[in-house]
Amino acid sequence: MPAPIEFYFDFASPYSYLALNGIDALAAKYGRSVDYKPMLLGAAFKVSGQGVLTEIPLKGEYSKRDFARSARFLGVPFKLPSTFPLNTVNTARAALWLKEQGSAKSIPFVHRAFRAYFVEDRNINDAAVIGELADELGIDKAALAAAIQDAGIKERLKAHVEAAIARGVFGAPFFFVDGEPFWGHDRLPQIERWLASGPF
Amino acid sequence: MPAPIEFYFDFASPYSYLALNGIDALAAKYGRSVDYKPMLLGAAFKVSGQGVLTEIPLKGEYSKRDFARSARFLGVPFKLPSTFPLNTVNTARAALWLKEQGSAKSIPFVHRAFRAYFVEDRNINDAAVIGELADELGIDKAALAAAIQDAGIKERLKAHVEAAIARGVFGAPFFFVDGEPFWGHDRLPQIERWLASGPF
Repeated sequence: MPAPIEFYFDFASPYSYLALNGIDALAAKYGRSVDYKPMLLGAAFKVSGQGVLTEIPLKGEYSKRDFARSARFLGVPFKLPSTFPLNTVNTARAALWLKEQGSAKSIPFVHRAFRAYFVEDRNINDAAVIGELADELGIDKAALAAAIQDAGIKERLKAHVEAAIARGVFGAPFFFVDGEPFWGHDRLPQIERWLASGPF
Repeated sequence: MPAPIEFYFDFASPYSYLALNGIDALAAKYGRSVDYKPMLLGAAFKVSGQGVLTEIPLKGEYSKRDFARSARFLGVPFKLPSTFPLNTVNTARAALWLKEQGSAKSIPFVHRAFRAYFVEDRNINDAAVIGELADELGIDKAALAAAIQDAGIKERLKAHVEAAIARGVFGAPFFFVDGEPFWGHDRLPQIERWLASGPF
């Protein structure tokens, strides 16, 4: 059984959103699963000295154009949210908790939350919105609401983020395939080569 | 006659080097020419506040791995030069002067200089090395040596770099296709879509 593809994402990262369907499809094609790992890029930026892409002079303007064009290229609906970036720590805690529970709704929740933010322009860090998404997916919303306030999940998410940074995760989407790091949705073609024929 | 693809490159940029053959092939396939435009990224970094990729914590280590792996993915020989980055202002002046002369050796010089740096680990900013490359290509090396010391070419390169920044060129390779900006060798698939079927 080949190892899962590790997929680090940040709920406020447009390129993470753009990579979702692509990585799922590649994994399915090559008989892998995807290990969805919520990340908080803000913590990584403190280490790398980098900042929010859209706020960088010159690069910021280009990036907004590139998000939208890349979405059209991939055939994925996309609208830059009115609040961007967004602190998504609650969303990340919710995703981590569902994953810890072994919930079958764990990956659907990630997809649904990304769509709520990047298509529907909803504040996915808001507990009420998280509750609505949970309801829609048949997730126990009271349990989820309690979980994201739990001291334990806060600590565990923090530890996961620190472990990710220790592995060199400085941006998102960030993938490890058999331990090999790939950064960016535009590395999916290289990931496919790796999955098809091994290290190159 | 469709407009040329504008291709901004920096001689010290690994991803510019990796894009050379790809952009030439795409242009040929779709009946376009490529307008090679030497750029100095250092000037753009002053505006954007960005720095040399390999020197950024976390991202720097990854980038070195990605340069080499991307080169293998594309089947292009590559070795990170022992001196990296490198001030390539002389090389850029040489390329600009050859272009201004309408020399048929102008694009071959760019390819040759990139190979000298990223395959042969030579200091391509050194006047003696520029002379050797010129010799090899049958370029009048005395005229080229004089040209890169000329006050006029210095001013014109500076003006070109400033004009590039004014257009939003913050990194390299950077392309404009019918005015549409594309940054990175990994945008070649999007450029191909544009060339094949127009704006999307």
